[in-house]
Amino acid sequence: MGKSELNLDYRLVTKVLTDFIKNETEKVGIKNVVVGLSGGIDSALSATLATLALGKDRVYAYALPYKTSSKESLDDAKLVADFLGVNFEIIEITDFVDPYFDKNPDISKLRKGNVMARMRMIVLFDKSAEVGGLVLGTSNKTELLLGYGTWYGDLASAINPIGDLYKTQVWELAVYLNIPKRVIEKKPTADLWEGQSDEDELGFTYKEVDRLLKAMIDDRKDSVELIRMGFSENFINNIKERIRKNQFKRQLPIIAKISNRTIDKDFRYSRDWGY
Amino acid sequence: MGKSELNLDYRLVTKVLTDFIKNETEKVGIKNVVVGLSGGIDSALSATLATLALGKDRVYAYALPYKTSSKESLDDAKLVADFLGVNFEIIEITDFVDPYFDKNPDISKLRKGNVMARMRMIVLFDKSAEVGGLVLGTSNKTELLLGYGTWYGDLASAINPIGDLYKTQVWELAVYLNIPKRVIEKKPTADLWEGQSDEDELGFTYKEVDRLLKAMIDDRKDSVELIRMGFSENFINNIKERIRKNQFKRQLPIIAKISNRTIDKDFRYSRDWGY
Repeated sequence: MGKSELNLDYRLVTKVLTDFIKNETEKVGIKNVVVGLSGGIDSALSATLATLALGKDRVYAYALPYKTSSKESLDDAKLVADFLGVNFEIIEITDFVDPYFDKNPDISKLRKGNVMARMRMIVLFDKSAEVGGLVLGTSNKTELLLGYGTWYGDLASAINPIGDLYKTQVWELAVYLNIPKRVIEKKPTADLWEGQSDEDELGFTYKEVDRLLKAMIDDRKDSVELIRMGFSENFINNIKERIRKNQFKRQLPIIAKISNRTIDKDFRYSRDWGY
Repeated sequence: MGKSELNLDYRLVTKVLTDFIKNETEKVGIKNVVVGLSGGIDSALSATLATLALGKDRVYAYALPYKTSSKESLDDAKLVADFLGVNFEIIEITDFVDPYFDKNPDISKLRKGNVMARMRMIVLFDKSAEVGGLVLGTSNKTELLLGYGTWYGDLASAINPIGDLYKTQVWELAVYLNIPKRVIEKKPTADLWEGQSDEDELGFTYKEVDRLLKAMIDDRKDSVELIRMGFSENFINNIKERIRKNQFKRQLPIIAKISNRTIDKDFRYSRDWGY
């Protein structure tokens, strides 16, 4: 894989992200982290960074397949867990979600996917209480900006080491960290149904959109400049609209303001209020 | 019920909160709201405000009991739904959570409570997709500050009309809006187990702690002034510590910063970025 325009100093990035995981766990006095391994590159990268930061014994990884999930995804999750040597358990969620699906026979594919993503959240947060760990986020910046994930499902976590890396950078960092090739080179999929491909569903490739997002968000380029870079007006507007429409997934519940110190408005601190 | 020190102009508060619900739904082009009715005063108030704002046909209320939930709570939820005349359905969550409990026989009471709260979140968000509605928050400011609620469970919502009202103010506004007395006067309970009482579990009354929270948070009084108001140093420190320890529940997942525009750090807008 050649260097992209989004290339970073991955030695430094690794240092920043492993320090982040170390600091955020120590700060709250929690020893371990919990992470769901989907078999995809994002969760593999989060788990790898956590293992580098904390050591393999403090990382609890779970594969959470549904009966229709692909066998290949599960094999890849196992491959990553073996590669890292972390604690690993397979917990099938079929029995936890099928009763709900049975009571809602008309439920759509999309709604089913969201219920499954949220059920995985339930399992991971419950396991985090069991083993004493923080739930590690596995959403990258591309997904977060495009809102390509389930609100209060896979988007829910305690700390997210990869949320400021575009998918392109996730791939590059994964190569730098020697994550198994099979996981890096496979087609990205949310594995919500057989044969699903992120890029087919989105209608563009991650490489393409990452170049645009970086220019638009990080470099604050306006439409004229973006068009000059070779992006079509249609594509630019489509992505802008997607970012705006999914803003709610990047926000806390919106609280109606009554007092002069409202949570998340005037009362908004890091973890150190009151000292 | 006499006027408390926290008393507000409830005519004006009602106007602000119903406008909020109207605006937030219209802004995103969503017609309805979805709310879980526990039988308690907070969800009754949220549902009442939504009914005033949108009309009863646009409010979808659900009671989501577990097999051990008290019959009284369910009766009170029905009473509220009848009082408002909103769409109402009872969906028992027992079959959805018991398979998980069966596979985790050593699960603690606290973990069970969290799994149930999150399962209710799953049902409400799935219903919101079904009926085309925003999920209404039902956590008041006292609970949010004390972290008395389940992260990604009952604390999860799209919009929260009562999140800036202390419990004392919730009661007063409920009286103003003529919510059925039985619901206002009952003992607050999360109904996680038989006979649970919030105030017993917390170790203080809402009236007491609300006076302290208002003075500490809204009026920014320091410890010397708070002691002069009659609060013990022990109580003040205990509450401060609680607020700090639960800060994570009032935050989005913490993202490690790499770029110059990080989500929730430098890239943080209302719903109108890009115009």
